[in-house]
Amino acid sequence: MTEKCGVVGVSLADRAAARPLYYSLYALQHRGQESAGIVTHDGFQQHSRVEMGLVGDVFDEGDLDSLNGSAGIGHVRYPTAGGVNNCCAQPFAVSFKSGSLGLAHNGNLVNADELRDELEGMGHAFTSEGDTEVIAHDLARNLLEEDLVRAVKRTMGRIHGSYALTVMHDDVVLGVRDPEGNRPLCIGEVEDGYVLASESAAIDTLDGDLVRDVKPGELVVLEKGGTGFDTYQLVERDHTAHCFFEHVYFARPDSVIDDTLVYEARRDLGRALWEESGVETDVVMPVPDSGRAFASGYAEAANEDATTDDDLVEFAEGLMKNRYVGRTFIMPTQDERERAVRLKLNPIRSTVEGKSVTLIDDSIVRGTTSTQLVDLLKDAGAEAVHMRIGAPPIVAPCYMGIDMASREELIAAGGETEDVREAIGADSLSYLSIDAVADALSSTRDDLCLGCVTGEYPYDIDGEPSDRDVTRPDVGTEAAPADD
Amino acid sequence: MTEKCGVVGVSLADRAAARPLYYSLYALQHRGQESAGIVTHDGFQQHSRVEMGLVGDVFDEGDLDSLNGSAGIGHVRYPTAGGVNNCCAQPFAVSFKSGSLGLAHNGNLVNADELRDELEGMGHAFTSEGDTEVIAHDLARNLLEEDLVRAVKRTMGRIHGSYALTVMHDDVVLGVRDPEGNRPLCIGEVEDGYVLASESAAIDTLDGDLVRDVKPGELVVLEKGGTGFDTYQLVERDHTAHCFFEHVYFARPDSVIDDTLVYEARRDLGRALWEESGVETDVVMPVPDSGRAFASGYAEAANEDATTDDDLVEFAEGLMKNRYVGRTFIMPTQDERERAVRLKLNPIRSTVEGKSVTLIDDSIVRGTTSTQLVDLLKDAGAEAVHMRIGAPPIVAPCYMGIDMASREELIAAGGETEDVREAIGADSLSYLSIDAVADALSSTRDDLCLGCVTGEYPYDIDGEPSDRDVTRPDVGTEAAPADD
Amino acid sequence: MTEKCGVVGVSLADRAAARPLYYSLYALQHRGQESAGIVTHDGFQQHSRVEMGLVGDVFDEGDLDSLNGSAGIGHVRYPTAGGVNNCCAQPFAVSFKSGSLGLAHNGNLVNADELRDELEGMGHAFTSEGDTEVIAHDLARNLLEEDLVRAVKRTMGRIHGSYALTVMHDDVVLGVRDPEGNRPLCIGEVEDGYVLASESAAIDTLDGDLVRDVKPGELVVLEKGGTGFDTYQLVERDHTAHCFFEHVYFARPDSVIDDTLVYEARRDLGRALWEESGVETDVVMPVPDSGRAFASGYAEAANEDATTDDDLVEFAEGLMKNRYVGRTFIMPTQDERERAVRLKLNPIRSTVEGKSVTLIDDSIVRGTTSTQLVDLLKDAGAEAVHMRIGAPPIVAPCYMGIDMASREELIAAGGETEDVREAIGADSLSYLSIDAVADALSSTRDDLCLGCVTGEYPYDIDGEPSDRDVTRPDVGTEAAPADD
Amino acid sequence: MTEKCGVVGVSLADRAAARPLYYSLYALQHRGQESAGIVTHDGFQQHSRVEMGLVGDVFDEGDLDSLNGSAGIGHVRYPTAGGVNNCCAQPFAVSFKSGSLGLAHNGNLVNADELRDELEGMGHAFTSEGDTEVIAHDLARNLLEEDLVRAVKRTMGRIHGSYALTVMHDDVVLGVRDPEGNRPLCIGEVEDGYVLASESAAIDTLDGDLVRDVKPGELVVLEKGGTGFDTYQLVERDHTAHCFFEHVYFARPDSVIDDTLVYEARRDLGRALWEESGVETDVVMPVPDSGRAFASGYAEAANEDATTDDDLVEFAEGLMKNRYVGRTFIMPTQDERERAVRLKLNPIRSTVEGKSVTLIDDSIVRGTTSTQLVDLLKDAGAEAVHMRIGAPPIVAPCYMGIDMASREELIAAGGETEDVREAIGADSLSYLSIDAVADALSSTRDDLCLGCVTGEYPYDIDGEPSDRDVTRPDVGTEAAPADD
Repeated sequence: MTEKCGVVGVSLADRAAARPLYYSLYALQHRGQESAGIVTHDGFQQHSRVEMGLVGDVFDEGDLDSLNGSAGIGHVRYPTAGGVNNCCAQPFAVSFKSGSLGLAHNGNLVNADELRDELEGMGHAFTSEGDTEVIAHDLARNLLEEDLVRAVKRTMGRIHGSYALTVMHDDVVLGVRDPEGNRPLCIGEVEDGYVLASESAAIDTLDGDLVRDVKPGELVVLEKGGTGFDTYQLVERDHTAHCFFEHVYFARPDSVIDDTLVYEARRDLGRALWEESGVETDVVMPVPDSGRAFASGYAEAANEDATTDDDLVEFAEGLMKNRYVGRTFIMPTQDERERAVRLKLNPIRSTVEGKSVTLIDDSIVRGTTSTQLVDLLKDAGAEAVHMRIGAPPIVAPCYMGIDMASREELIAAGGETEDVREAIGADSLSYLSIDAVADALSSTRDDLCLGCVTGEYPYDIDGEPSDRDVTRPDVGTEAAPADD
Repeated sequence: MTEKCGVVGVSLADRAAARPLYYSLYALQHRGQESAGIVTHDGFQQHSRVEMGLVGDVFDEGDLDSLNGSAGIGHVRYPTAGGVNNCCAQPFAVSFKSGSLGLAHNGNLVNADELRDELEGMGHAFTSEGDTEVIAHDLARNLLEEDLVRAVKRTMGRIHGSYALTVMHDDVVLGVRDPEGNRPLCIGEVEDGYVLASESAAIDTLDGDLVRDVKPGELVVLEKGGTGFDTYQLVERDHTAHCFFEHVYFARPDSVIDDTLVYEARRDLGRALWEESGVETDVVMPVPDSGRAFASGYAEAANEDATTDDDLVEFAEGLMKNRYVGRTFIMPTQDERERAVRLKLNPIRSTVEGKSVTLIDDSIVRGTTSTQLVDLLKDAGAEAVHMRIGAPPIVAPCYMGIDMASREELIAAGGETEDVREAIGADSLSYLSIDAVADALSSTRDDLCLGCVTGEYPYDIDGEPSDRDVTRPDVGTEAAPADD
Repeated sequence: MTEKCGVVGVSLADRAAARPLYYSLYALQHRGQESAGIVTHDGFQQHSRVEMGLVGDVFDEGDLDSLNGSAGIGHVRYPTAGGVNNCCAQPFAVSFKSGSLGLAHNGNLVNADELRDELEGMGHAFTSEGDTEVIAHDLARNLLEEDLVRAVKRTMGRIHGSYALTVMHDDVVLGVRDPEGNRPLCIGEVEDGYVLASESAAIDTLDGDLVRDVKPGELVVLEKGGTGFDTYQLVERDHTAHCFFEHVYFARPDSVIDDTLVYEARRDLGRALWEESGVETDVVMPVPDSGRAFASGYAEAANEDATTDDDLVEFAEGLMKNRYVGRTFIMPTQDERERAVRLKLNPIRSTVEGKSVTLIDDSIVRGTTSTQLVDLLKDAGAEAVHMRIGAPPIVAPCYMGIDMASREELIAAGGETEDVREAIGADSLSYLSIDAVADALSSTRDDLCLGCVTGEYPYDIDGEPSDRDVTRPDVGTEAAPADD
Repeated sequence: MTEKCGVVGVSLADRAAARPLYYSLYALQHRGQESAGIVTHDGFQQHSRVEMGLVGDVFDEGDLDSLNGSAGIGHVRYPTAGGVNNCCAQPFAVSFKSGSLGLAHNGNLVNADELRDELEGMGHAFTSEGDTEVIAHDLARNLLEEDLVRAVKRTMGRIHGSYALTVMHDDVVLGVRDPEGNRPLCIGEVEDGYVLASESAAIDTLDGDLVRDVKPGELVVLEKGGTGFDTYQLVERDHTAHCFFEHVYFARPDSVIDDTLVYEARRDLGRALWEESGVETDVVMPVPDSGRAFASGYAEAANEDATTDDDLVEFAEGLMKNRYVGRTFIMPTQDERERAVRLKLNPIRSTVEGKSVTLIDDSIVRGTTSTQLVDLLKDAGAEAVHMRIGAPPIVAPCYMGIDMASREELIAAGGETEDVREAIGADSLSYLSIDAVADALSSTRDDLCLGCVTGEYPYDIDGEPSDRDVTRPDVGTEAAPADD
């Protein structure tokens, strides 16, 4: 399960934007490891470098030096199965009638094909398969006859789905968040300017302060020279559709998203997990690193319920992660397969042997890892393994920009929790309730995107039910009559 | 002085096009060393790989295996001064309303900016600075309402300048040559299909036979399955404007271009050089490798004029080239600069010392190399160095697709041959006359592009005189009313 | 502070040794990231691959396939300041009169220079500066007239210092540990053979079982074909000199070294830290990842002492580590320096702001990082930062194979704990006592190497006092009179 | 057929030796493309960089900057079939009792195994299979009790075979050539010092002057500071055994070796070829690039014999070489094999068609290429192909440092010239006589190594007859009793 992208944008007084963009992309590297890109503008022309690879591999000092200008945007993208093309690395940059455009996109449009068809009908030709090029062409077209704010508004009226965008029109940097606020985007202030970023941790990296989240449906325009920013609430909705998995899994623990610190949310989810389905065992153990905050909250709540010293839970790391296993790893042969799991994650026999264990993780997608972990612990002598998950069962795919799995691959899609428990070999298994999630995020069911845990989506997706009253825009009607 | 590009296209019965394209690009590597690309189509979808680098570095076995389909086009591109972007590597590939397009272009449009402006006015956005994307957008637009042949004809009516194109519309491969036939393009037949290539040497490489040159203004459509080809004479002109420098410098000696073998042309130019300005010296010496065929013709003609054995000219290599000096070479410090020239080209003292030398080369552009060579030979003891050049003086820049030099940099631009002689330090200097060039190519002044040696061009170029009656098309009037 | 090396050796029935060696080196990657090497022997000849780089970068499938033979040894080495040479990558392989030798060494000889001088006097020439080549030459020389066990014994009588060696004499694999047992080495059993490794985690990775530690002064000879192993107690001492920092810092938490699980030792050190210098604060916080096990033991012990729920300590992660900051990172400019620290380690404001914090780490070397961390936490709003360290103050350099720092660089070398506290800006600072360390390792002061915390060493080091009765061997007297 | 190595050495006044070494290795790159290395000494310590790859790939600016010192040696090595190790890259560097040694070796010892055995018996251990390490150990041993000149003399008395060595003892640079002078080595003078090099072209590159060849059996010691050089005739022989293939094939045309310019020698060999076996055909054609100088001499001699203009031979290039086909080339599939030959070498139909052709090359080894070329020319329409070879038939392998072929692979080893002619499909075939070779080199049969063309060698090689009175030294008797 991987996030698709991270985006940033900065507008500074005098300082070149390239290095701040570079450091902020480093801070968002967890959101995408396939490609990285920076596009800047120096008032006269665009400069760009977009390549496959990690941030640290894509840019060298010379690259940063040649990316002139104190305004710019950046992007990191998730790994996909290898194709011949590096078609969709971003930011996507084009020049058109009214100047240049750069776009960095996190999210997924639901009606990209319809828009593409319409634009092709008007003669447009596309160099990639991506949503981003569609948005760019539509926006460029609207900019032929509208000012920037109206053009963005018109494009927002035509695209449907999740999007957090940083955009550069010549040297003006914008941020836009879709009307449901599905993907995160926030505004930060640094000494000599302003920053837009998918997560506040990127702002921290620049020694800046989080100003606030961009509101759903809002356009933020950073002033040139880093002197301030203007905002336009271009679309309003009754409810939001924040992705709760940002807090559960994707985002960095040290990021604040939609007013909630991710680390705190995970600890609260862990506490709720104890309250909803706590089990007394010899030891509480996180799956490293994803389950650590949950387990810490779980253990804390358990200890608060303890009445004697003997009731205190033992909180211990029982699985050790090898941080060096990376991309160049040579896969073991079939009969060495089991060894490979232990190369990545090795159980500590003495903290496990002869004990009943509560193993805490954030989620179960396909169930493969969970099965292996239960196996590893039992092999190491665990008498019982009780699995506690800090999120509800994932029963449906994500259409909003996360690379999860197909419905067939989701272990919880078909059946009961008992079936999952049996499949992974645990002695007991409990998930968290949806209400607990909403509580931990200080939100409500109505303001979250719960598609993957309910199968009902806050968008109009072909062949899927919706949990609210939504319709796709009729792209044609709002199209700019550009060349009439 | 470097050629800008080489193009190929193949359509075969069953065999995958990728390997033949790869080998034919290898055969055209001298036409461009900056980037290489192949686009194929398997009947269902396009596949492409386009990267910076030499052909041998860009493609590995896996790349070739994944470029499916028995139709495809390819491109090699010349080195430019380094930019942040690899903006203009080709073939350029897009998808649009009526399918996919791939374009590989050799040449230079004179009215690309006007066309781009017009297309941007219709809402088009461009990802590159290149001519090729402009042609692609215009062609895509015309294909919305015309069949392939009419659409190409309409685009040819709108673009002005030099172009030899290989194009792929879905899995149909086309070749187009501009109405003046400025850049070369020829048709070849292989066992199981047909080939288009900038030079016939690429066809030889595939063990094929040269069928004929594509005619100026002609469209060639290779039939799917490699069964044949159709031709359409879409535009006709009274005169051609073949680039004579293809024969003098760029093309491989073993290529036949516009019915003339390049090697033979060079030998004939060398013979003419003896006839126009032969000088008796102790030894005749080519600049390796460019002057070799000229010098061989020159010496042969000289020997035919010899009446006694003593009159026979000594033909000898007096400058040795180090073929290993390449891209990764560390430049010497200022005081080692002289040594560096001798690292690349070392005089053989004994063939030079105490002798008068006729040094033969194909052309003089900036004069830097000629100056160094005269210097090297004199240092090695040459009593006199007589320079003979197998082409007329270059006095004006090329706007037709060759990276020559600006007018200021051209040593012959300002003055008399005597000034050039003095500047390079030779004891005498003679160029070839334009008429001799026309004769050697079995052509006439009226059928050649002589812009770089006369300053008058066969196209309507801003701020430059033309040597014939040409006007740029008014791009607007023939524009396809695509979305009305 | 970095460990210098990790070593492995395997002898199997039929299976090629290369892959098991590769996976076990992966498991020991934390012990050395500069170079990696494997040497195997197939009964007829040696095969080797030793290169600079991480395990995953040094070996590809083809390399593993060509490293034939079911016996072999491997090595990983720490990063040093860049030199022109990759002089000391290991295993070191030589051929000599009686066959071939391969050596992989973890540790540091104290009398290498004397031995080298003596061998040079006998005509030996050396290709590197390293200890390992000295041991190899000495052993080769002794093997000219002794059998393997006697030759090893003779060499052990001549070398003085710390060493854990895996050695291959033709296809026989040996393990040797110095008489004081300073560096770890253990024996493991896998399905089809036996393994030697610096840490038991490498054995786990091969799905094997830890048999036991190699004893100080012991030689272990793995039988060919993986059928068993023989041991020879070649040297005996009254006391050991185990490096306690293996347990405190270097070794993996999941390794068992000298009968003690590293993770358990760290938890016990954390508990002792509470007992010796516990302080009541709002939150207990580990420095990730090094302080985590200590902090967990500390918090557990604190909670056991709690009498009411309010006394329970909050255990929270307050510093988030960016795992992507690696080798290719472009260093920030001077005025961005502060940002760089936050790129690597970002405080979570809400878990810190307005609180008094106990920050727990394993050790303080130069004090730079501690100073930055205290700073970061105070900037994030911490009211007080109390630092607790799970080891005694480091007051002297290590001569036994760890790259620590020079005496001048050690913040605790000169003065009192109060001076260190002031220097790093903490509100209080406590280290652990030496006795607590000995207890946690179930050892005694007399059986540990405490050089770095006492300045007295268990070896005879030029210019340093010793904490026991040791003398360097007089290398000459036991020298093999090889060619007389 | 490839040369095994090239060597250089320089000693300068103040200037760093690294760059001159780098440029001179570039000039010798044709002598070895597998590895490159430079070792320098700054008066205090050795610096070295030795890696697999071409000169331009092995060294970057930083490498050159860190190779301190104004004295140094360098080496390039030929490509071998890939092994796991880069065992034999040179210069070989060691430190020993009396300082440091660096050795760069071109040639092949006949008694290396005996020497190695003897040294191993004295306790020496070797890291490589190469001759060079054996020479280094022997020299180091002798230096324990002799001064430099005597130690070199003693080593020369023990090694038997071909060798041209550049050696560095601390910062003193030496050159040594074997008593038969089999491999070339010459002395040059540059502005601020002296140079040793395999070929004089390397000296030209440094803008220096050739002083003279190092004499067979001579030791040249460059003075520190580049102020001069001393020579010692350490061994004398009645006859030399120069390798005539240096002039025929390996060396650069612009090098002077043993007083003969290689280019002139090749022209003279070509003239002799006309005299011995001239044939009247329509066109004379070189195999590029190896046959060019031969063909030029051949044509010149033919023209001198011509009595009328009609008798003048046409000298033409009929085969075009693609200089871009390099290491990364993807081999064609079986049925594309024929195309691949034409990718590398393409016939020019019009200079061949309907004509009888004299094709001139320097030598025939396996016959594969010759067969392909005759084939290509006949396919292109040649009526007859007469092959003329500028050397005698190669009938036996080289043991003196050239990678030729085994006896079985040599097409001329078994039989008559007529058999070879038939095998390669030529209409006639003539080789040059041995006497003609001796004449062209101003030498005699007795002063040349003719092993490959006679099967009798000027050295004592196991299982091969010798053409003179030679015996291997009894290595033992002259061994230095180093450690008594």
